[in-house]
Amino acid sequence: MVSLPTSADVGDAARAIAGVAFRTPLLTSPALDAVTGARVFLKPEMLQRGGAFKFRGAYNRLSRIPDSGKSAGVVAMSSGNHALGVATAANLLGVRATILMPTDSPAVKRERTAAAGAEIVLFDRDKDDRVAMAHVIAGERGAVVVPPYDDFFIIAGQGTVGREIVEDLAKSKLTPDAVLVCCGGGGLLAGIALAVHAQAPSTKLYSVEPEEFDDHARSFVAGERLANRKTSGSLCDGLLAQMPGELTFAINKQHVAGGLVVSEEEVKRAIAFAFRELKLVVEPSGAAALAALLSKRLDVRDQTVVVVMTGGNVDPGLFAELIC
Amino acid sequence: MVSLPTSADVGDAARAIAGVAFRTPLLTSPALDAVTGARVFLKPEMLQRGGAFKFRGAYNRLSRIPDSGKSAGVVAMSSGNHALGVATAANLLGVRATILMPTDSPAVKRERTAAAGAEIVLFDRDKDDRVAMAHVIAGERGAVVVPPYDDFFIIAGQGTVGREIVEDLAKSKLTPDAVLVCCGGGGLLAGIALAVHAQAPSTKLYSVEPEEFDDHARSFVAGERLANRKTSGSLCDGLLAQMPGELTFAINKQHVAGGLVVSEEEVKRAIAFAFRELKLVVEPSGAAALAALLSKRLDVRDQTVVVVMTGGNVDPGLFAELIC
Repeated sequence: MVSLPTSADVGDAARAIAGVAFRTPLLTSPALDAVTGARVFLKPEMLQRGGAFKFRGAYNRLSRIPDSGKSAGVVAMSSGNHALGVATAANLLGVRATILMPTDSPAVKRERTAAAGAEIVLFDRDKDDRVAMAHVIAGERGAVVVPPYDDFFIIAGQGTVGREIVEDLAKSKLTPDAVLVCCGGGGLLAGIALAVHAQAPSTKLYSVEPEEFDDHARSFVAGERLANRKTSGSLCDGLLAQMPGELTFAINKQHVAGGLVVSEEEVKRAIAFAFRELKLVVEPSGAAALAALLSKRLDVRDQTVVVVMTGGNVDPGLFAELIC
Repeated sequence: MVSLPTSADVGDAARAIAGVAFRTPLLTSPALDAVTGARVFLKPEMLQRGGAFKFRGAYNRLSRIPDSGKSAGVVAMSSGNHALGVATAANLLGVRATILMPTDSPAVKRERTAAAGAEIVLFDRDKDDRVAMAHVIAGERGAVVVPPYDDFFIIAGQGTVGREIVEDLAKSKLTPDAVLVCCGGGGLLAGIALAVHAQAPSTKLYSVEPEEFDDHARSFVAGERLANRKTSGSLCDGLLAQMPGELTFAINKQHVAGGLVVSEEEVKRAIAFAFRELKLVVEPSGAAALAALLSKRLDVRDQTVVVVMTGGNVDPGLFAELIC
């Protein structure tokens, strides 16, 4: 049986990343409160090191690699933000990193990953078996494969987002009624669930996914892991995981109240709203939860609601198009 | 003799705006530290209510208006962010507000000011005497003129930016070696100077202005208030004040180490940097101080440097052009 992380492991992760990852603030917006009738708090993970929450899990995972394993290094596969998180953590910890990235990943994410010092190997999202490729490279080098979400330490690391949310709200004597989390493989959601429910068991947690990539929403209803039909073709390039992870789903199915689904048009409007009203740069994958709130997927009137904005690594040309 | 505010008045302002204005975080950026060789902290006032620091001074000023004066209200003149700050504060305090705005002010600022419930009167920046117009309206209505910077309570209110900087750095046992502030009429700079020098008298404060609108830089050298030749035609629409204020200069000439000047090209590069590396939306006027840092106007190696980013109200079309 596989071991699942607990809120205590999130606490360990918080200590491992302290002073290296940023403690992002909790922001409020009168405009958002007015639109929703709720008391909304935003967790802006685009302000995290590397421009996305992924650094938290990556650093927590890589910090467990002993000195003797650093030259063999790590292998990771990712459309972008996990790649960048692993590359940045590897750079800080002196660990060699090789990253498999899909050919359709945004240029900005490939460039930033290379700039952080990682070696990049491209794969075709529809044709290549990325997992097999990663294990071949790992086998040749004795490297550790660092999966993007289905990993004990990755989940615990991402959970620090939830831990900070609960701690910061507690300073204002608040507990969240609902937390909305953008969901790809479910690692961030699982980590947040562990941390939030340890302190606030009545908080309702929701996954938010783009249409046609709603594997979590359907899996929660079915009670088992279901896959998406499509593997590519969404504006939300970071939310394309084919199905919920094994570990992440084992946690999420116990904790999550439901799965919300947003359209591409709603994601676009959320990005423009964040530009105009919040002055934050959010990438499509990072705007799904905000899109769900703005599109009134949930009745949150008079509630304390937290929306996690997961990242801001978006190509300037695309962003320009989305805000105009 | 006119009375000048002190750091105690900044403390009063902090209490007046507490729970209404946001306490913006101090952010760090490894990318910025790498580029400059300094330990850089950013004060992101685009995250302030209304998208700019101006709400602080406006709310502090308007909160001093007695109930009997609320229906006569206030009159303000501004290219945008002061307008929006006054309109928002007036709305919250139940004060009537009329705002004189130049015809060339960004559409986004005019729209947001109107949306906050203020009446807008347009004037021509080159032809009309805005001060006379404001006093005519004020005279007719018995309204109070709220100047954008040359006012005791406005300066004290803007000073809360400096107070928060010093308090937040003190938590990490740091004091700033240098603080760079975008400078129009000098109200923010003066307020920050009062607050910072009360706690850290050795900190060097710098004004940052765009080329051709460098009235502060030249006035500091001359030891007296000098005017700009031009009154319009800069990308930095919020930094066009014709000369330093009387009150603000009386403070700034005692506190400021020098005036820095940046080109329009440098401001554009700073906006693109903030988009790419900081994931923040900064308007041209709000990016001048960051531009000075990135363009190495100052030798800050190994120093603790604070850059105040003053606002993020920029038209989407212009922003799109600047980041691509």
